[in-house]
Amino acid sequence: MLSKVLLVSSPGKVILHGEHAVVHGKVALAVALNLRTFLRLQPQSNGKVSLNLPNIGVTQAWDVARLQLLDTSFMEQGDFPAPGPGNPPDFRKLGQTQSLNLVPGPRLSLGTSPSVLVRESHFAPACCRALPSLDITVWSELPPGAGLGSSAAYSVCLAAALLTACEDIPNPLEDSVHTSRWSEEDLQLINKWAFQGERVIHGNPSGVDNAVSTWGGALRYQQGKISSLDRTPALQILLTNTKVPRSTKALVAGVRNRLIKFPDIVEPLLTSVDAISAECEHVLGEMASAPAPEQYLVLEELIDMNQHHLNALGVGHASLDQLCRVTAAHGLHSKLTGAGGGGCGITLLRPDLEQDKVEATKQALAACGFDCWETSIGAPGVSMHSATSLEGHVRQGLGIL
Amino acid sequence: MLSKVLLVSSPGKVILHGEHAVVHGKVALAVALNLRTFLRLQPQSNGKVSLNLPNIGVTQAWDVARLQLLDTSFMEQGDFPAPGPGNPPDFRKLGQTQSLNLVPGPRLSLGTSPSVLVRESHFAPACCRALPSLDITVWSELPPGAGLGSSAAYSVCLAAALLTACEDIPNPLEDSVHTSRWSEEDLQLINKWAFQGERVIHGNPSGVDNAVSTWGGALRYQQGKISSLDRTPALQILLTNTKVPRSTKALVAGVRNRLIKFPDIVEPLLTSVDAISAECEHVLGEMASAPAPEQYLVLEELIDMNQHHLNALGVGHASLDQLCRVTAAHGLHSKLTGAGGGGCGITLLRPDLEQDKVEATKQALAACGFDCWETSIGAPGVSMHSATSLEGHVRQGLGIL
Repeated sequence: MLSKVLLVSSPGKVILHGEHAVVHGKVALAVALNLRTFLRLQPQSNGKVSLNLPNIGVTQAWDVARLQLLDTSFMEQGDFPAPGPGNPPDFRKLGQTQSLNLVPGPRLSLGTSPSVLVRESHFAPACCRALPSLDITVWSELPPGAGLGSSAAYSVCLAAALLTACEDIPNPLEDSVHTSRWSEEDLQLINKWAFQGERVIHGNPSGVDNAVSTWGGALRYQQGKISSLDRTPALQILLTNTKVPRSTKALVAGVRNRLIKFPDIVEPLLTSVDAISAECEHVLGEMASAPAPEQYLVLEELIDMNQHHLNALGVGHASLDQLCRVTAAHGLHSKLTGAGGGGCGITLLRPDLEQDKVEATKQALAACGFDCWETSIGAPGVSMHSATSLEGHVRQGLGIL
Repeated sequence: MLSKVLLVSSPGKVILHGEHAVVHGKVALAVALNLRTFLRLQPQSNGKVSLNLPNIGVTQAWDVARLQLLDTSFMEQGDFPAPGPGNPPDFRKLGQTQSLNLVPGPRLSLGTSPSVLVRESHFAPACCRALPSLDITVWSELPPGAGLGSSAAYSVCLAAALLTACEDIPNPLEDSVHTSRWSEEDLQLINKWAFQGERVIHGNPSGVDNAVSTWGGALRYQQGKISSLDRTPALQILLTNTKVPRSTKALVAGVRNRLIKFPDIVEPLLTSVDAISAECEHVLGEMASAPAPEQYLVLEELIDMNQHHLNALGVGHASLDQLCRVTAAHGLHSKLTGAGGGGCGITLLRPDLEQDKVEATKQALAACGFDCWETSIGAPGVSMHSATSLEGHVRQGLGIL
């Protein structure tokens, strides 16, 4: 067990193209969003595991001895246990809630927190089979419950920190550097345990969110197969949260119903969305190898077309139309990302854009009542940081004095 | 040669579904728009042909003897003559302008007016080979230059009136009725000559506009083949003219360029548009045979999807977005019709709509600076009227005291 403080971060994700179409066997392109979750792990010897979530003002501690009594037999099984008399009720509840999604208020069930810890720490090597005593603080730039993979970023940070603390994977940080990443093999391990955390939180996750948060960049997802894009440029974007709540389940069902009702209309539309993803993948590859300004214009056209396609699938919303209209008035191109029906949208920022134009757009979006972040996609995956490399607001968030 | 005054009307047209896709071999559904062009033909014996177009304040008269001297040899040929030394310059100009499209101002070239008359009257039977002396007044409810088939309605009225005046087809109006239509055989003849008028005006028209204006109802057009839908319900609509000018040619070229640039994206999109037309045709057939309120909901969904598709093809416009947004705020569904990029849109009015809601929508559209008409589609084709059957504003337009 390492005795030093670990500082880990991992990115959120947005769907660049292919949301909804992915449900029907088409490609989705998921990209790492450089709004990050940060985790500080401090080894202790007080016999307690404490978890501090400053975003939502929650601090909770458990006796290690008590945590050891939790039934972790499910971890020897391949699958998360189905609810039934053989499984203790607290674990059944876990699989059915998204309660660790850093969501404030009544959605946070504190009972779930140690379960993710237990699951992830028990997957750590033999030296750690006895739960270590730890203080963990997690602080995130990601808005919760917005489909930006905040739970996956949490799970990835936790997996990376616990595996490193237990010395199952090396600490990649050398003294002379401020930020380091793990080897491919170590990332595989981090991703594997992060997925277990996602299963506790979501029940039956696709694995996309934790993969993006682990590897960063961009990845392609189709029919359960996840593959990283070889090289991905970092693209500046505005991420805008309309803050209009929506039900992903209802939106997905709506598309399915439309497909059943009008198969000859909707099936080719999904094929067109699929071709947009393929074209985008192609252009991203070209941008990484031979960047040219025209490539941004193609990305903008693809964004526009897909936004219209998503509207045709019935997952648009007046707030998203407004977002697109406001950014179009500034010469920028936007689409919804994720489930739609409200939620978030992304706006591509061309490299030649003047900052005052970006600021004017952000102000116009804020004037609509939206939250807006200037950030990037194609961000690095899970990383280990030195304390000095973290920006002030992050240090403050993690309570580093 | 009949000696009585003839009063003829024929409808405009809108494309219900399939605009732009039709250029690429897909189906378009064209429907008769119950904004009509009215023609009054008064036989004279003054040796003149006079044409009065009160919409644009133009009155012109020509000596019959002079008109007879115009070279009409092109009418013996199957095709409109290509520009060349063998063809007199005035006729070459005719084929290249849309100058009889009831367009006011500099686009009106008076030289074209007698040419349509000559062409159409010369196709009339032997008894009329010598041009008759006539006063013709044409007044239209159709806004000109808005892609609503105003030139075709003009040509159809003219063909029907001249053929009837020359007794090549019977006057269908019996004393006891106020409005009558011709037999199928006579309509074929009217349509044939109207198409010649369209060729003078447009050079290379598709023949859709004159067919819709002749037969009314709805028709299906695909790869040069035109067929009437067996039974078409009359649907109440708002027709809104954004008055934003656009170039049909540039818009068609834009779609073609997008298809060339992104074939895998745009080709399935056109397939989806094609399926929308097919579904609409199916629903219209059902509405005619077994009407049910749910059918209107399907028509609304088809309108929405096609509007998004047209946006994805790049032929939308902020004014059309505004039109859709304003009508959506009143629970109504709209799409552009025709070329897009401005121009006109249609809004379906369900039969259960309260009139005050319709009025509120019309007011909201007028407040945007748009012209808006409450009218219907699936209207009757070319018709002969008694003077008493015409509404006051039409009688006034035609100068009937």
